[in-house]
Amino acid sequence: MPAPIISACPVRTRFGVLSIRPFIRFFSHTPVHHLRSTELTPDYLSSLRSNPDRIWTDIHTSASKFGPGRRWGQDPTHTGLTRLTLTDHDKAARDWFVETTKSLHCDVKVDAIGNTFAIRPGLNNDVPATFVGSHLDSQPLGGRFDGVLGVCAGIEMLRVLNDNHIETEGPVGVVNWTNEEGARFPVSMMGSGVWAGAQDLQSIYKLKEVNAGTNGQRRTVKEELERIGYLGNIPASPIEGVRMAGHFELHIEQGPKLDSEKKSVGVVEGVQSYQWYEIRVWGQASHAGATEFKYRADALLFASGIVVKAREMAEKAGVLATVGILRAEPGSVNTTPDSVYMTLDIRHRDNEMVATFAADFQGWLKQAAGREGGITFEMSKTFESRATKFDEVAIACVRDSAGAVTGKHDVPSMTSGAGHDSVNTSKHCPTAMVFVPCRKGVSHHPEEWCEKEHCAVGTDVIVQSVLRFDQWRHKEGHFGGSLDSNG
Amino acid sequence: MPAPIISACPVRTRFGVLSIRPFIRFFSHTPVHHLRSTELTPDYLSSLRSNPDRIWTDIHTSASKFGPGRRWGQDPTHTGLTRLTLTDHDKAARDWFVETTKSLHCDVKVDAIGNTFAIRPGLNNDVPATFVGSHLDSQPLGGRFDGVLGVCAGIEMLRVLNDNHIETEGPVGVVNWTNEEGARFPVSMMGSGVWAGAQDLQSIYKLKEVNAGTNGQRRTVKEELERIGYLGNIPASPIEGVRMAGHFELHIEQGPKLDSEKKSVGVVEGVQSYQWYEIRVWGQASHAGATEFKYRADALLFASGIVVKAREMAEKAGVLATVGILRAEPGSVNTTPDSVYMTLDIRHRDNEMVATFAADFQGWLKQAAGREGGITFEMSKTFESRATKFDEVAIACVRDSAGAVTGKHDVPSMTSGAGHDSVNTSKHCPTAMVFVPCRKGVSHHPEEWCEKEHCAVGTDVIVQSVLRFDQWRHKEGHFGGSLDSNG
Repeated sequence: MPAPIISACPVRTRFGVLSIRPFIRFFSHTPVHHLRSTELTPDYLSSLRSNPDRIWTDIHTSASKFGPGRRWGQDPTHTGLTRLTLTDHDKAARDWFVETTKSLHCDVKVDAIGNTFAIRPGLNNDVPATFVGSHLDSQPLGGRFDGVLGVCAGIEMLRVLNDNHIETEGPVGVVNWTNEEGARFPVSMMGSGVWAGAQDLQSIYKLKEVNAGTNGQRRTVKEELERIGYLGNIPASPIEGVRMAGHFELHIEQGPKLDSEKKSVGVVEGVQSYQWYEIRVWGQASHAGATEFKYRADALLFASGIVVKAREMAEKAGVLATVGILRAEPGSVNTTPDSVYMTLDIRHRDNEMVATFAADFQGWLKQAAGREGGITFEMSKTFESRATKFDEVAIACVRDSAGAVTGKHDVPSMTSGAGHDSVNTSKHCPTAMVFVPCRKGVSHHPEEWCEKEHCAVGTDVIVQSVLRFDQWRHKEGHFGGSLDSNG
Repeated sequence: MPAPIISACPVRTRFGVLSIRPFIRFFSHTPVHHLRSTELTPDYLSSLRSNPDRIWTDIHTSASKFGPGRRWGQDPTHTGLTRLTLTDHDKAARDWFVETTKSLHCDVKVDAIGNTFAIRPGLNNDVPATFVGSHLDSQPLGGRFDGVLGVCAGIEMLRVLNDNHIETEGPVGVVNWTNEEGARFPVSMMGSGVWAGAQDLQSIYKLKEVNAGTNGQRRTVKEELERIGYLGNIPASPIEGVRMAGHFELHIEQGPKLDSEKKSVGVVEGVQSYQWYEIRVWGQASHAGATEFKYRADALLFASGIVVKAREMAEKAGVLATVGILRAEPGSVNTTPDSVYMTLDIRHRDNEMVATFAADFQGWLKQAAGREGGITFEMSKTFESRATKFDEVAIACVRDSAGAVTGKHDVPSMTSGAGHDSVNTSKHCPTAMVFVPCRKGVSHHPEEWCEKEHCAVGTDVIVQSVLRFDQWRHKEGHFGGSLDSNG
């Protein structure tokens, strides 16, 4: 059965679209007149708005039902989100996503890495869909907007199109990418990475969770996909699997720029380069009361020096460097630790700056360890995401939409500090992102917060961007995939 | 039934003891002639030796059967020991201790905190026993000698007395103290501390393990005592429970002094002062890619500065300071940690030096946190053990015995860097300790190692110390407890 809003033989008119709406409303019992996206006037398109209450309800429903996190305030909405990928909470959120998009007349497809695509048919369904996408998984102590807002914006787009009886030329859809965070299974943007070919499916299947479960076992991605029922039967591929005409993503900024400059929205033109490293330090456990300093080889003391030095060197070099994980073993009050596991995250807009810093830091580390008796180390790269520049057409769709929604001509252009699934989609189709402010730039934290009006503004920009892109693709005859926008 | 080696009417002789031994051996079918400790000649006493093979077997049997730890070499004995207190491994070691000492004709008593006392009757059993004691629990990644050697020396003493048919004036015994390490339940010297009144039994019962078990629950001391069947029915008290005439403890040095100076044994005259602190640091989680340094409040960066500064200040002050545990949350590669839990162990021979350093460090911490935006901290004392001076008589027994066993007059006097159960017993009865070298001073580590000959020498000193003390108490009429040797 075709989705009910798409009539087999759509009624079209050459009249100005705005003029027909009172007519439809007045004769409410007459058949619904569908609007074709390519026939929407610029004014009508610019006037399209989402429903802020619906978005707000979706976000808070998601947060309270599927992985409620740490409480930080009195309001029912004042909790974080703890929804590590492929857990029961993640499954519940995925089920909600599937049910909701199906009820909005979408076909839902799950690929081999659990990416879930909800597709609303267009006039021509032989061409790939234009997607709005982001992720429903969270950090261990995350907030309720990171990722979730982008998926909710996609769902709201479906409702806006349905409410306004808009038919798109090609299909449009919403995608929930698997394990964007890389928090439980340590590869970030994992699902989109597999889809895009940046990650090898079989290797990712074997990837183990970073912390052992209650049974002491570290489970794999594949085991958990199977367990929660999201090991899909179609390939994770932009060619053999779900093809994509374009990808638009709404996300909180996760930094303080928009909030401090009182801007409601930003046009994201690219994503900075970053590399992740694991550093292991080995020393010698010894008794804290009986071992003079000169006889010690304290792995934690050395590792602490690494943390301090990384910041110092990064400030000088003008890059960002962060130690997010540090674990010291054996972990006893009166024993000097003999081993430390730690991570290092390095970022800059320029690939070379990241690579140079990593090499310089490794050089310092080698010298420093050489000066210490009994200290050895290993530093190895675990992940890399090169600098990404988004597609000009997709950026233009976002910029035009942001101007139309805000009525302002000075919508800031931005480079994302964080990686997003859009980095991966940009390798295969026109991609761009929309940022909205989050309070004080706080993210990856229960208190992460985005104002209701900003959620709505961002969603409005997304809805209009997709429609402008649909108009463009029809006009230009762009029907999909394999657009290399990154050189 | 009385223990079989103690005849109801012991055969005594005024003959020189050494002269009677060939006679006993020759007429092996004649009744056994028992030797009274107070009638042993100095030469005979000085010639008494333990059996190195038996001690060696006990130590390695214990290590391979009850909590084998991390392997570090090819030999079957080249593994560490992982026997956290009140675990199944600890229960198995305790059961072995009980069976072994019972088979050596001891009465075994378990007190309310699981301390286990094996008592070999003497001629007068109305007086308290002189104990050899230490502990069978280990660090998470500990070695096979720390504590275990001291208990095995006590067991070997029983065998030496039995083999030589020696009757002591008062009873003698061996005690296995509960949770000396403080690694699983974070109070060190816990069992002896409760016995001595330094710790409150009811508070200790409620103490929770530092890491949650496989079911996610953190179990209490009392739950675990009950579970393994070592919640005894006699009070943990030197007055209402098992009284003690004296306490001798053999231990590896856990520092490099004896090993580097090629000494086989040291006389321990006291234990340095130490305090344990918990430090909690709170900052703000933020995205590692999207948050410039000026907007960050990175709890791990601040905590790392604490580790570095503690060492720096301690070196200047001439005290020992060690951060043994550091845990950073939430623990994600691309998120700045928002909280850190860490410990600080401070030691010096002088109580005032420890207290002054702690105050100075807290002062620095307050200033440092004040300089950082968004960083707060708490530093609180969790444990204190004041400097201990052992009893002159007990020290003299050890010194005389060490001289007799080694044939040397320059046996070094030492102050223990580590705390031991002897700190607690010294508050109630004459106490002294014997140190033997461990390779390179390494302890609290799988590779901790004590040579077989040193295990034997230390045990010889312990055996003779107990007998010399038994002679002294009989001569001086010292029959137990409440001796305040520490002022």
